[in-house]
Amino acid sequence: MPKSTTHRPSKFKELRDGTIRLFGIPGLPEIQAGDNLPKLIVDAARAARIVFKSRDILVITQKIVSKSEGRIVQLSTPTPSADALSLATTVQNDPRMIELILRESRRIVRKGPRALIVETHLGFVCANAGVDRSNVPGDDAVTLLPKDPDRSARRLAAGLGKRTGKRLSVIISDTFGRPWRLGLTNVAIGAAGVPALLDLRGTKDRSAKSLHATILAVADELAAAAGLAMGKTAGLPVVVVRGYRYRPVRQTAASIIRPAHEDLFR
Amino acid sequence: MPKSTTHRPSKFKELRDGTIRLFGIPGLPEIQAGDNLPKLIVDAARAARIVFKSRDILVITQKIVSKSEGRIVQLSTPTPSADALSLATTVQNDPRMIELILRESRRIVRKGPRALIVETHLGFVCANAGVDRSNVPGDDAVTLLPKDPDRSARRLAAGLGKRTGKRLSVIISDTFGRPWRLGLTNVAIGAAGVPALLDLRGTKDRSAKSLHATILAVADELAAAAGLAMGKTAGLPVVVVRGYRYRPVRQTAASIIRPAHEDLFR
Repeated sequence: MPKSTTHRPSKFKELRDGTIRLFGIPGLPEIQAGDNLPKLIVDAARAARIVFKSRDILVITQKIVSKSEGRIVQLSTPTPSADALSLATTVQNDPRMIELILRESRRIVRKGPRALIVETHLGFVCANAGVDRSNVPGDDAVTLLPKDPDRSARRLAAGLGKRTGKRLSVIISDTFGRPWRLGLTNVAIGAAGVPALLDLRGTKDRSAKSLHATILAVADELAAAAGLAMGKTAGLPVVVVRGYRYRPVRQTAASIIRPAHEDLFR
Repeated sequence: MPKSTTHRPSKFKELRDGTIRLFGIPGLPEIQAGDNLPKLIVDAARAARIVFKSRDILVITQKIVSKSEGRIVQLSTPTPSADALSLATTVQNDPRMIELILRESRRIVRKGPRALIVETHLGFVCANAGVDRSNVPGDDAVTLLPKDPDRSARRLAAGLGKRTGKRLSVIISDTFGRPWRLGLTNVAIGAAGVPALLDLRGTKDRSAKSLHATILAVADELAAAAGLAMGKTAGLPVVVVRGYRYRPVRQTAASIIRPAHEDLFR
């Protein structure tokens, strides 16, 4: 991993004893294609008497970002290819769904029951390329991942900054499964302003021995933390993380994707 | 996954708008084998004027649990086997370290540069079986994972409960890498009192469509959240998560381990 993509904390004095707070922004309406998400978030926060502070990190679910960007498809739209029809039998899923997944994917990694594990065009390895039926109105509608979630995050951070006058960071989160462990956890698929990877290599531990090869995926930990305050059914798709100390940096969530040639599991 | 090992939230009224707080307990001494960890944690909390509340979740690093349980080995102790010597060349690591890793492992999953990805005797898939040099005093000392981290968590929760009169839950955390994504994140290797997996299958989403196959690994999200307040170099090995709403349950972190026959990546 090139040094330039990671944030070395040694230059930055962190206050270690600060409390980190996680809270959702209630009252957001159902998001529609074309909606101005920064405006809706700022309005909802104002109505809930939430006053943003600089360095607040807003963790926003992929779902509402996709909706605002019009990344919604009706399942009746795509005509399944022969590949999709054949795969649909193997993985026991709707061939139209499979067709959409294949269009979003660069490669199939594994075929599981009711799920294809794929590598998306952006390089994310996840189930069904993020094509998802949940929390979308209409029996037939599914959402796709944002086309470029890091760009979405930068745009949202800029819009939120303009409306609030505060330096706000943004993480776009999605729930991914993982090998070896059951259950989904929230990870960062887009980021603006926050460190994605915190490189502690060469820093000393408590015993003053060097730490070897320790890089923390803090953007993923921030997304996971926010997930606790969202609740999958809760309708709190925007969570504020306040009090996490960091130096604002230009890092992308894409930088968390392990390069294929370094990956022992592709 | 058997139903009995997961927590269905439908029976339990959650207050969704509560703020979750994460804060470390400062002032813990260097932990020694045989130390009474609940006593040291309660003493340190008292000195820092932290008053525990029932349902607080204490996320405790594996490192200090291992130390208190005497799971420390001097690298000079083990005599490397022929297997260890040969592997040491392949993965460019100390043969004595490899020997310890093999003793802690059931199976080698992958051989990487400077790391063996193994399945431990408990079933965790992780680098170097959790054998780790960092934050251990002495040039030659390494820690092993606790022998049964779920039992450790139950014992710690019981000890903390007795000393405080509060119903406290415990997660024992460690930093694991993962395929496809760079960086480490904190996960739960032991748990007592908190849900490990939150089963939302069958619950309705905002659009009143059923959620399919959604199980959240909340113990891992709690560990990751706490990781933000620990800092790898910070010396805050105990973090309190306050305000996360849950129903106390008997679930183990071991229940998060995906059964081998369901795993597409073994």
